[in-house]
Amino acid sequence: MSDGGGIFSSRFVPRPDGVVDAAGLPAGFRAAGVHCGLKPTGAPDLGVLLADAGGTVGAARFCDSGVLAAPVLVTQRSDAAALCAVVVNSGNANAATGEAGIGEAERVQAAAARALGVDARRVAVASTGVIGVLLPGQRIVDALRGAVAALAGDGADFAAAIRTTDVLDKHADLAVTLPSGEVRLSVQCKGAGMISPRFATMLCFVQTDAALEPGCADALLGAAVRASFDRASVDGQLSTNDTVVLLASGASGVRVAPGSADVERLREVLEALLRALAVRMVADGEGARRIGRVLVRGGEGDAGARVARAVADSPLVKTALYGGDPNWGRVAQAIGAALPGTAPLAFEIAIEGIVVARAGAAAPFDAAALAAAVDRDEVLYEIGLPGGDAGAAGAEMFFSDLGYGYVKVNAEYTT
Amino acid sequence: MSDGGGIFSSRFVPRPDGVVDAAGLPAGFRAAGVHCGLKPTGAPDLGVLLADAGGTVGAARFCDSGVLAAPVLVTQRSDAAALCAVVVNSGNANAATGEAGIGEAERVQAAAARALGVDARRVAVASTGVIGVLLPGQRIVDALRGAVAALAGDGADFAAAIRTTDVLDKHADLAVTLPSGEVRLSVQCKGAGMISPRFATMLCFVQTDAALEPGCADALLGAAVRASFDRASVDGQLSTNDTVVLLASGASGVRVAPGSADVERLREVLEALLRALAVRMVADGEGARRIGRVLVRGGEGDAGARVARAVADSPLVKTALYGGDPNWGRVAQAIGAALPGTAPLAFEIAIEGIVVARAGAAAPFDAAALAAAVDRDEVLYEIGLPGGDAGAAGAEMFFSDLGYGYVKVNAEYTT
Repeated sequence: MSDGGGIFSSRFVPRPDGVVDAAGLPAGFRAAGVHCGLKPTGAPDLGVLLADAGGTVGAARFCDSGVLAAPVLVTQRSDAAALCAVVVNSGNANAATGEAGIGEAERVQAAAARALGVDARRVAVASTGVIGVLLPGQRIVDALRGAVAALAGDGADFAAAIRTTDVLDKHADLAVTLPSGEVRLSVQCKGAGMISPRFATMLCFVQTDAALEPGCADALLGAAVRASFDRASVDGQLSTNDTVVLLASGASGVRVAPGSADVERLREVLEALLRALAVRMVADGEGARRIGRVLVRGGEGDAGARVARAVADSPLVKTALYGGDPNWGRVAQAIGAALPGTAPLAFEIAIEGIVVARAGAAAPFDAAALAAAVDRDEVLYEIGLPGGDAGAAGAEMFFSDLGYGYVKVNAEYTT
Repeated sequence: MSDGGGIFSSRFVPRPDGVVDAAGLPAGFRAAGVHCGLKPTGAPDLGVLLADAGGTVGAARFCDSGVLAAPVLVTQRSDAAALCAVVVNSGNANAATGEAGIGEAERVQAAAARALGVDARRVAVASTGVIGVLLPGQRIVDALRGAVAALAGDGADFAAAIRTTDVLDKHADLAVTLPSGEVRLSVQCKGAGMISPRFATMLCFVQTDAALEPGCADALLGAAVRASFDRASVDGQLSTNDTVVLLASGASGVRVAPGSADVERLREVLEALLRALAVRMVADGEGARRIGRVLVRGGEGDAGARVARAVADSPLVKTALYGGDPNWGRVAQAIGAALPGTAPLAFEIAIEGIVVARAGAAAPFDAAALAAAVDRDEVLYEIGLPGGDAGAAGAEMFFSDLGYGYVKVNAEYTT
């Protein structure tokens, strides 16, 4: 995947019609990124985002772990619909830090609320970095004044402050033509691979100047997250810190009403944007050379979703993808592992459109054509299962390969 | 792990008292290993095992995949208690081969039954090797005469015939002192790492000259498999072909009666033997440098088992183990991922006896001592969960690390 195509650089997620690049944050937003002393390199490690407009509406999603980080626990207690600000640090996850960690997260939230002149329950806090080290919240508190003074209508510094091991940029400013008028959409996202999109950590902040009702904002974000970050896996590992926050300022004056053609269009664009970011995170897995997309059609109940996840998380499939090896037996193995008690199962597998197995058994295929087809940056695996609705959209996962780089980063990266 | 200590070379599974090395198969058994043309190297690839004694009793266990290999499907239809022979090939798994594959497995079973003079339903068939290629059963049929002629009271050739990528030997002949007398126990096992113990493939054949009733043999094998192979993971991947067969000839004249001190002793020894083999398979994972043992105490319901498996299968924990990195944050992450909805969770983690987290938060520890403790061949992770019975045996998994060798074997090994 190259950076050339902008945020929509994967063939799996084309740029939606009516979406063009823009500059700066949507109306009603200001952001900043500064250094507060958490990253030893001196790089930006504190981001502040503020929606000044009175009618701002928020929505949020988090990972579901038994070891949720303190900032997640604290933000979950806030009123998501009333959110109007974000304070986020990199360099320390403030996870597995107990009551003391919650205290530090609350201290940061309260100090940011004072500095921004808003209620503390309207401030989302988020952290990313090392697990198990208490966040030195005072460093953030001390740096807040400078961050607030630096607030401006551009998200680049904020995006830099949340970036950790990311190589690919995950920051975009877009203009979107809706039936009722043009709205703006900005996103700042982080997540790379030593880490899965769901681990240590995936953060995503979305701003729009569309006018959204709280229920509509929540539904839009939920649908987009389910179709994007929930379908991406670098290594199948669930994070302690994942946070996605959508803020809608309404400053464009374009009202996106529930049930309207506007909301349907915005839903499509938001989903495409988060899917593009999810694919970008998978492509950004350290050491990742290729990414795979698995699409499972048919199957009863949640069989398709289980198979898609089993294939995406299989280290055997992932190493074969890395090696450019069209080893469909490993895909068959993952299918079987996901569906115990169903043997003999009449599955079908096609790789890049070449059918390699049908009715649960090997099918004749052109080995040279298959070898050439898998030797590319993005590889599509399509699986058919008996039963279910074969015409439905199907279950989908995006995943990175598993190569030497993953081992290097994760075996030699010491906390 | 060195080969010096024999089959019981891991500190995690000490040799049980009253168990000494012996030579050759137990009374009532003959075995052979020959080349039938499946392995291009000309190495042995066909094993035949026969129990001549009339009163032989069998028991079997298989993996549970939706993509079970043809030999598993065929052997599952046999009468496990009546089994008295095994015919096994390496070089081809005969998995994902559909009805044609089942036909080939039945042909091999029938031909072996004729050659050995027993009923076909008393012959277990097993295969290991590449998935998705139809087994050329005629090669086995053609080689059976030579294999039967070579049958002798030693399991070494049979063990060689089932071996594929194994580096560590998994073949043992033991004498076991029971209260009622001495019995013999032999085992031939295969399974290494590119592959998990449960993938492509784990095979284990156990012979004893003890006299066992069918229900007792089945219960003994089931308990031992649950405590051993079911607790081992190289890469969390479930096989299509795993097969474990126990045959008891009764030729020693030592009757091991249900509920007796003999059966309890034999249960302990069989469990230790299969645990030693499971640990050996994990240690034999290609590229594996270290193995881990995770032991989870407490937790409601199946929480402990879920946590143990999540830690054992976490590529983040496994790469940290490989790197000798005492990164307990990754263990905390895996715990949380296994138990969604429980945050904040008051877990405890000790690595090699050094407590690193308590009540869900970092605990002070001697970093140098911990770094030294994890820089060894075998590393113990103990996890405590709130609730449940903290005094119970706990949930346990053995696992290999994830290093460059795993990637090399699996990315560069083309089918």
